Amino acid sequence: MDKNSHNPKSERELIRRIAEDLINQPEPEPERAEARVAFGDDMAGIPDSGGWLWSVDMLMDGVDFRSAEHGWETIGRKAMSVSLSDCAAMAVRPLAALCAVALCDSLTIDDAVAIHRGAQSCASEYGCRIVGGDTNSWKKPTVVSVTIVGRAEPGLAPVRRSGACVGDEIHVSGLLGGSILGRHLTVRPRVELALELNRHHTPHAMIDISDGLSIDLGHILDSSACGAELNKDALDKVVHPDARRLARQTGRPPLEHALHDGEDFELVVVLAQAADKPTVERLGLTRIGHITKTGGLKLRHSDGKLEPIEPRGWEHFR
Amino acid sequence: MDKNSHNPKSERELIRRIAEDLINQPEPEPERAEARVAFGDDMAGIPDSGGWLWSVDMLMDGVDFRSAEHGWETIGRKAMSVSLSDCAAMAVRPLAALCAVALCDSLTIDDAVAIHRGAQSCASEYGCRIVGGDTNSWKKPTVVSVTIVGRAEPGLAPVRRSGACVGDEIHVSGLLGGSILGRHLTVRPRVELALELNRHHTPHAMIDISDGLSIDLGHILDSSACGAELNKDALDKVVHPDARRLARQTGRPPLEHALHDGEDFELVVVLAQAADKPTVERLGLTRIGHITKTGGLKLRHSDGKLEPIEPRGWEHFR
Repeated sequence: MDKNSHNPKSERELIRRIAEDLINQPEPEPERAEARVAFGDDMAGIPDSGGWLWSVDMLMDGVDFRSAEHGWETIGRKAMSVSLSDCAAMAVRPLAALCAVALCDSLTIDDAVAIHRGAQSCASEYGCRIVGGDTNSWKKPTVVSVTIVGRAEPGLAPVRRSGACVGDEIHVSGLLGGSILGRHLTVRPRVELALELNRHHTPHAMIDISDGLSIDLGHILDSSACGAELNKDALDKVVHPDARRLARQTGRPPLEHALHDGEDFELVVVLAQAADKPTVERLGLTRIGHITKTGGLKLRHSDGKLEPIEPRGWEHFR
Repeated sequence: MDKNSHNPKSERELIRRIAEDLINQPEPEPERAEARVAFGDDMAGIPDSGGWLWSVDMLMDGVDFRSAEHGWETIGRKAMSVSLSDCAAMAVRPLAALCAVALCDSLTIDDAVAIHRGAQSCASEYGCRIVGGDTNSWKKPTVVSVTIVGRAEPGLAPVRRSGACVGDEIHVSGLLGGSILGRHLTVRPRVELALELNRHHTPHAMIDISDGLSIDLGHILDSSACGAELNKDALDKVVHPDARRLARQTGRPPLEHALHDGEDFELVVVLAQAADKPTVERLGLTRIGHITKTGGLKLRHSDGKLEPIEPRGWEHFR
């Protein structure tokens, strides 16, 4: 996998410039600022749409999957899962999907049907259905792009990245790190958990871990204009066994894999300080730190030492 | 351009099998058949969505555009236009777009921004805005996928492919053929015309010409379970000058280019027999034939001879 093989700084710069362009584009009609979900969240919407949100994710052979190793049905399933995870990130119910493909012309019809079958079977498990798409072929590696259409539940707003407040507690929904050993292909997006959280626990901010905890939590901190302190002892408890296995191969500490590996698709959930412990545990969340006023992202060691965490994702492991 | 370089029969077979799969997927909830826009139209929706429809188109370097010849802003503009044309096909107002890209890593940031700027400036002209997307890079040729979110106008249903009736008249919205000489890059999707037609003239069926008149009209005939007879003298009047120029290069009759070339993005409009001539002319439509009970697609020559037209698109010109 050479995700982010492009200079990652350039990619961030590119996204920043495109976001600027998008923000500056003329408004076709007056907007209600409060209804808008702007560029910069996991899904996007428009004012007065009745709670509809959309997102798209594009996966490329050799970058997000390897067709030489992974079955096409598994690949289709991953493509759908990654997009469904955008719905989890915002606590939005996925309702419909569109699947666009550029198929390498070495694929058989059975291969192509398998991609759609994998995507569709995954979607069905979440009450979502593929309603359309675009099928193309070319002589280059296969590209799969899934658009998800979702809707906030009645009376509820989507959870954004920008609502974290000083003192809020930061949680994760599962174990992290080493997904590249295979787990990234069989992701279980946390849609139901996210919906339940939004119904009963009013998260201040949420995101799914696609690029890595340090980068994705960093997006919450940027959007919410705050910092965060993570607790090393708590983080040790959410290190996935795969992170330990991978650490033996890379020679790096397992904690680094938990902090920086991509594609766990677990949720980072920011809850008010008042969230009660039994509830947090019942939901399968682990508290890993809290929101601070400033100072970026920091790691608190058991001996009290505070160390800055530099956000970094996949590119670290090339 | 080697669009449909894959065996086109296999592609049709693939789409048929995927459609079968999609039709057979479990229903997450009971559906009102009349509200459903199923797989097989230019855009797709779900029941009780309040008239929202979505579509996606994926364009690949070397297939739908050539980055060695065409500017990136032009390429972005084409990607958006092709998707907007899906809205025209169904008489749906485009409201939002998502733009997913896999950028060849030889692109500069300026190139990437140019793609988005081209797409965005095109969208703005139609009252539509880019609200999100997905930006990736890899070592392969650039892929651009645009998802369009549209909505039927209040009180109006989207125009489908399936409503053509025996005796209905078939019209096109402009001149056809030879778009590959350059026009395919500067498409003007017929959104406003389509909306006006739907408001005041209740088209029985409509489609945009992306693969070629013979193939796309064929989709209407398949969906509506009918045939059509095209009038050669009328068709001669809609042959684009580019079709004549291309004919001089290919040695084929200009009419063949008008009938089978792709990417004109004009509308095929099926209106009730009663549609009055002055209106049709004022709208810039040209009547080219009529719907028949059976018999597939046929061409009526001036001498009365009736000749079958075999649907074929791009692959013909390789």
